[in-house]
Amino acid sequence: MPPTLTLGVFDSGFGGLTVLRELLPLIPGARYLYLGDTARLPYGSKSRETIARYALSSGRFLLEQGADHLVVACNTATALALEDLKQALPIPVTGVIAPGAQAAAATPGSHVLVLATAATVQSGAYTRALEAQGLTATEKACPLLVPLVEEGWLDATPETQSVTAEVLRIYLAEAQREAPHATSLLLGCTHYPLLTPLIKSTLKSLNYPLQVIDSAHATAQAVAQSIAPTPSTHPPTTHFYATDSIEKFQRLGSRFLGHPLPPVELIDLGG
Amino acid sequence: MPPTLTLGVFDSGFGGLTVLRELLPLIPGARYLYLGDTARLPYGSKSRETIARYALSSGRFLLEQGADHLVVACNTATALALEDLKQALPIPVTGVIAPGAQAAAATPGSHVLVLATAATVQSGAYTRALEAQGLTATEKACPLLVPLVEEGWLDATPETQSVTAEVLRIYLAEAQREAPHATSLLLGCTHYPLLTPLIKSTLKSLNYPLQVIDSAHATAQAVAQSIAPTPSTHPPTTHFYATDSIEKFQRLGSRFLGHPLPPVELIDLGG
Repeated sequence: MPPTLTLGVFDSGFGGLTVLRELLPLIPGARYLYLGDTARLPYGSKSRETIARYALSSGRFLLEQGADHLVVACNTATALALEDLKQALPIPVTGVIAPGAQAAAATPGSHVLVLATAATVQSGAYTRALEAQGLTATEKACPLLVPLVEEGWLDATPETQSVTAEVLRIYLAEAQREAPHATSLLLGCTHYPLLTPLIKSTLKSLNYPLQVIDSAHATAQAVAQSIAPTPSTHPPTTHFYATDSIEKFQRLGSRFLGHPLPPVELIDLGG
Repeated sequence: MPPTLTLGVFDSGFGGLTVLRELLPLIPGARYLYLGDTARLPYGSKSRETIARYALSSGRFLLEQGADHLVVACNTATALALEDLKQALPIPVTGVIAPGAQAAAATPGSHVLVLATAATVQSGAYTRALEAQGLTATEKACPLLVPLVEEGWLDATPETQSVTAEVLRIYLAEAQREAPHATSLLLGCTHYPLLTPLIKSTLKSLNYPLQVIDSAHATAQAVAQSIAPTPSTHPPTTHFYATDSIEKFQRLGSRFLGHPLPPVELIDLGG
């Protein structure tokens, strides 16, 4: 029996569970360690130095737990700390930005609208990654989408869903004025895949025909391609760590993962 | 000339500037030191132990800078760390919760609706403080209000303002069903004073006649009463520190303070 592959996945919170959800069916025989650095979220409002320090301590923790490959399932940490992680860790490190840009390059058209948090947009990382693929990028910060998703204002009641729909309509109508000729829309935040149905219906109502690209899915595919997993008959194992707020992680995490979480282990990374 | 009184004011971010704004006219001759622990915000999603540790390091920093009195202009830190701060620091410490509860006790009626963040509500601190005044409390968590205020969706455009109005209507209509006989509404978050006009018009449209109590104003009055400042002819001086994101602090802070901020000094409290 070959040694089991261990994949470490980390995010500032539970948003990265949308990446884990995509990984599980693609690399089914692996052992998964997921770390949500919830004590120090959100990374988005912090400086590059602070985020790099946090990302390194999270990456080292997963390495110590036996990770053979690190997946940075966090757009902010990928934008601001991917190179630091690659240099510091002796294992392969995959972020969420390059796979999303590569998936965009595989679609028809050359102008990509990126929806992301303010910090990700400010980093310019998606614009650089898309330009490296010969594409044009328009980045749109959508700071209210993460709190709306975390509050469950997607399908809780018709009136809360209509607030989220209206917020999306405002953001996408602004984007349409800025980038009327865009042909695809890249979801540049791990929370946004939960909004995909509402985003697609809003695009339709705005008559703004963009192809939606999910960077969580693209990232999982990139990891699977780099690892080329052998078919496995035994199911994946998952272990969850968080640095704070276990209860919230457990409660909200299942919405991102698509099924209930096992108990989450509280760990202390300092700070 | 008597030695100048130094007031240290701290919050996890810039929300506490609404408390500083109320203090300036009441204690005009003082020297003010404001610390926003922006590197570690939001406190609301963290555990009691973590918040107490953060609050202590912030309080000690202001003490070292010469504070004679500490104002905890943060509902979460007051709810979870006020006693730790009082025990650890050799200066008077005033939080935002007891003054708000005392102001509520001075209004007619005995049932108070408290709007606050999820963490403040979960702490139960307002319910305890209001019950100590012989009042009944209904606490309502409104997690979307802080991001809406921080994004400026108050008066940016008619359509963004109508989203904020609709979110408020949903929260207040839920509160009205839970507490139909409430007589006053306590703003239990330092961001909420910016929403006062919209809250008042929403209450009117719901036919829910509550008297709005601003805990930032009540806190400033409590500090002024405990200090009994002598009339001063020289203007206050203000100095601002933040642990991260100086640019955002500067940009958004003026909205909370009501006038532009002087340069903000970046400090490192570790973590």
